[in-house]
Amino acid sequence: MKTIIVDMMGGDNAPLETVKGVGRAIKELSEDVNYILVGDQVEIERIARENEIVLERCDIVHTETYITMEDEPIAVVRGKETSSMSLGLKLLKEGRGDAFVSTGNTGALFTGANLIVRKVKGVKRPAIASLLPLQPPVLLADSGANVVVTPEYLEQFAVMGSAYMKNVMGVENPRVGLLNNGEEEHKGTELQIETYKILRANEDINFVGNIEGNRVMQDTCDVIVADGFTGNIFLKTMEGLGKMMLKTLKTTLYSKIRTRAAGLLIKNEMKGIKKTFDAGELGGAPILGIAKPVIKAHGSSNAKAFKNAIRQAIAYSENDFASQLEADLAALAAKKSAKAAEGEEK
Amino acid sequence: MKTIIVDMMGGDNAPLETVKGVGRAIKELSEDVNYILVGDQVEIERIARENEIVLERCDIVHTETYITMEDEPIAVVRGKETSSMSLGLKLLKEGRGDAFVSTGNTGALFTGANLIVRKVKGVKRPAIASLLPLQPPVLLADSGANVVVTPEYLEQFAVMGSAYMKNVMGVENPRVGLLNNGEEEHKGTELQIETYKILRANEDINFVGNIEGNRVMQDTCDVIVADGFTGNIFLKTMEGLGKMMLKTLKTTLYSKIRTRAAGLLIKNEMKGIKKTFDAGELGGAPILGIAKPVIKAHGSSNAKAFKNAIRQAIAYSENDFASQLEADLAALAAKKSAKAAEGEEK
Repeated sequence: MKTIIVDMMGGDNAPLETVKGVGRAIKELSEDVNYILVGDQVEIERIARENEIVLERCDIVHTETYITMEDEPIAVVRGKETSSMSLGLKLLKEGRGDAFVSTGNTGALFTGANLIVRKVKGVKRPAIASLLPLQPPVLLADSGANVVVTPEYLEQFAVMGSAYMKNVMGVENPRVGLLNNGEEEHKGTELQIETYKILRANEDINFVGNIEGNRVMQDTCDVIVADGFTGNIFLKTMEGLGKMMLKTLKTTLYSKIRTRAAGLLIKNEMKGIKKTFDAGELGGAPILGIAKPVIKAHGSSNAKAFKNAIRQAIAYSENDFASQLEADLAALAAKKSAKAAEGEEK
Repeated sequence: MKTIIVDMMGGDNAPLETVKGVGRAIKELSEDVNYILVGDQVEIERIARENEIVLERCDIVHTETYITMEDEPIAVVRGKETSSMSLGLKLLKEGRGDAFVSTGNTGALFTGANLIVRKVKGVKRPAIASLLPLQPPVLLADSGANVVVTPEYLEQFAVMGSAYMKNVMGVENPRVGLLNNGEEEHKGTELQIETYKILRANEDINFVGNIEGNRVMQDTCDVIVADGFTGNIFLKTMEGLGKMMLKTLKTTLYSKIRTRAAGLLIKNEMKGIKKTFDAGELGGAPILGIAKPVIKAHGSSNAKAFKNAIRQAIAYSENDFASQLEADLAALAAKKSAKAAEGEEK
């Protein structure tokens, strides 16, 4: 029996869509899951009533305070300690639940996860990883949390991303690529050139080399490693173009009688295509390197996307690899210092 | 009467598609244009004959040597001085023509343009700018040539990009955005934070602020400024996702009888959609900051894309703004040193 702690507040559509999302999770996902809903109890119960949602297997922890999109990230531990996000993270830390899901302020969630739940021992910087809606899905690490990084951080993103894809997504021997502006090993800035060498030397990950932006979509890797700046540009560009193309397609299909007829013929297929490119289908973004599972749902999540984020949190809680990761990072550090010592002896 | 110098060799599909492209340019574009075709005369004439293309208004400058995709960029001036690309650039330098188009090795073309045709006075680093197939088109500068840049380079990319959109594309008061991971002025790495300040202070460009990857597609700017690394990731991601979505759509439309019927109904519209997202429709990428117009056509250009690159070269040659740019950069430099002197006096 797992318990998922859910931040009901703070997203663009919270608490309406979060309540609906929890409602769908209760109905559609495993019955072996309990929920702790953190947020405004009156609001949550009113929305549930109005939408005929039975909140079974749910405890509510009441608070009226929440982190807004405009709040500084640090507010989560200084100023808004009674916010739904802060309380949820504390409950996770105390072991009252097995995973935490929030659709709120990304910066605050990242800061709170770091300062309240804490990092896995040996992790330099946790990363926000996004599952890209490709076939098969690709995990982007980092997708925006760490704008300034070192090659060592990127190596850890590779290790953590591999562990996630293996343990939570069931991918055997995940292929790791480095997002770069060309395939040759000398490509990129100093950062990519150094990172390439380090990843190449790491025998515990399946490094497949530099991957260009267009090749990520061509089933070339399971984990794509990037600094948070580049990762953010990549992710947002995908989102933006995907949305624009679907809109153009829709406008075209429904513009004339003839094309409208075609639109009706392929209505279901259109839904399928939309689904293929819908990040909400895959759920949220895990924050890698935190001692317990924390999942960031997209700020604009609707009920379905939020349900899928909960599904991912359940999967993560059932395959939590924090202790394994700690051991792996310790082994990696030991290998490196042995190599360094060897180098000195010579 | 303008003369366009055309590199017939070196692309993925050259010289077959370049000859066909020139054939279409002769037929479909202005009759007030002459061409100098640089490449293997025997091959060019054979392909023209076999495809019933009359090479009127064309002179051929014969050479059998050409720069391959594998050649080091520097080969254009050291080792392969008789290549079609080198000869073409020399003809441009000597004033034998008004613009040069090549589908060959990007690095070599950039190097050759710099070393043979030379920079506009005052330009620190020329940029390869790509016209993105959006509505309206957006010019990305830099799209890959300058991986390591300074805020001053990026300011010049903004000035040159503005000049191109104004003079060649006819956009009044082009909006300039800085590609970044958020809209606030403190977003990005040190590079973007500094560049933001400089662009904000520049009164001669219409700076609209930081633009996120997904917002570029939403008619927010006419010029998007980035370092070559980030620009390359952005461009390739757009290309890759666009291709993948069109492929998925095509597969869906032709998978079943019902959807195949729909596919037939919207055949023309599908072509329109493809056209909307086809970089080849817009022609090639101008190398900004070079004393005379140099256009890079996509390496995989087919006849139509190559014709469009030639069309862009003609437009560029008719609205060449090199002397205006030189004056603008001199004025900008003068303003800056006046400001610096003022600062010192205080």
